[in-house]
Amino acid sequence: MPPELLAAIEAIQSLPGIGRRSAMRIVFSLIEGGKTRVENFNHALTELVTRITACSRCGAYTSRGADPAATGCVYCDNPRRDSASLCVVEQPSDIYAVENTGEHRGLYHVLGGVLSPLDGIGPEELHLPELAERAARLGIKEVIVAANPSVEGNATAHYIADLLKPSGIRVTRIATGLALGQMLDFAETQAISQSIRQRVDL
Amino acid sequence: MPPELLAAIEAIQSLPGIGRRSAMRIVFSLIEGGKTRVENFNHALTELVTRITACSRCGAYTSRGADPAATGCVYCDNPRRDSASLCVVEQPSDIYAVENTGEHRGLYHVLGGVLSPLDGIGPEELHLPELAERAARLGIKEVIVAANPSVEGNATAHYIADLLKPSGIRVTRIATGLALGQMLDFAETQAISQSIRQRVDL
Repeated sequence: MPPELLAAIEAIQSLPGIGRRSAMRIVFSLIEGGKTRVENFNHALTELVTRITACSRCGAYTSRGADPAATGCVYCDNPRRDSASLCVVEQPSDIYAVENTGEHRGLYHVLGGVLSPLDGIGPEELHLPELAERAARLGIKEVIVAANPSVEGNATAHYIADLLKPSGIRVTRIATGLALGQMLDFAETQAISQSIRQRVDL
Repeated sequence: MPPELLAAIEAIQSLPGIGRRSAMRIVFSLIEGGKTRVENFNHALTELVTRITACSRCGAYTSRGADPAATGCVYCDNPRRDSASLCVVEQPSDIYAVENTGEHRGLYHVLGGVLSPLDGIGPEELHLPELAERAARLGIKEVIVAANPSVEGNATAHYIADLLKPSGIRVTRIATGLALGQMLDFAETQAISQSIRQRVDL
């Protein structure tokens, strides 16, 4: 294979979730598509990494506007969002997963990860000090911790509860248990166990 | 979502075999990867579409060398390839599938598609006239038609046989039938039927 072909296949294969065969198929289609198509494609990616930035307040993805001093986002800057409720997520992309549900009409706060002492990630490595400061300043009534249901996610949720409950803020955790549509006899024992312990009244 | 984020997701999703969720995952990883990573990625794709071209003789992908007049490829220019045997494929990418087998040590000829009268694709739309010319000029003894096992691929193979056999060239077609490892009771009747009709002596 010509070196430029190999290099392009390796570049595509470096993207998450793309194997060798898919990368080859994509590269062959790019050759067929020609120069203009790749120029447009590259332009979209350049715009992405030069114009998308994190909201200086909540950490959500936001576009650098015409005014470089403006650093807000569609959540923080929207006066119709419920400023008494704040949803904590690990990554900016998690916001879209929550927004898709339409269940949360409040603000967001991106941690940038979860507590993981073994990896040297303590509260100072995450946006946890800013969370306490924002919650106090904005007069937040409830903080919903939507960190992933992992050991680290749960530890982080408990840390946030210890941090904010003394200020009288309600701290909740998104429910875990059986996934919707999941069959009992195929579910992990731990998931069933959790769904029994966290059972809700009918 | 910011418009640059949406545009990047749509650009990635336009690649073959990539759905919305995969595209989002890739775009989020590109944001995390940062500017330099996207610059290197874009450079690889730009090099691909500016430097990869088709061999003027066989149609294989080849890299424009330092000498712009050189238009050969690693198959046509390699004196150790068997110049009496020529393998006909639909697309340049098919060459790599054949090369991976190590079964063909001869030359190649890319048709650029298959005969499809309903789509207005006749012999003149493919590199069929060049095939006849090359086969005569190079003194080819056998032409192996490795077009895909489709109705159009078979029709194209028969067209090539009619075209070249009068000149005393042996024209063969790659075998179809049961795939290696395929179980009889799960195979399509047509595939079993073909594997019986094309049975080989032991």
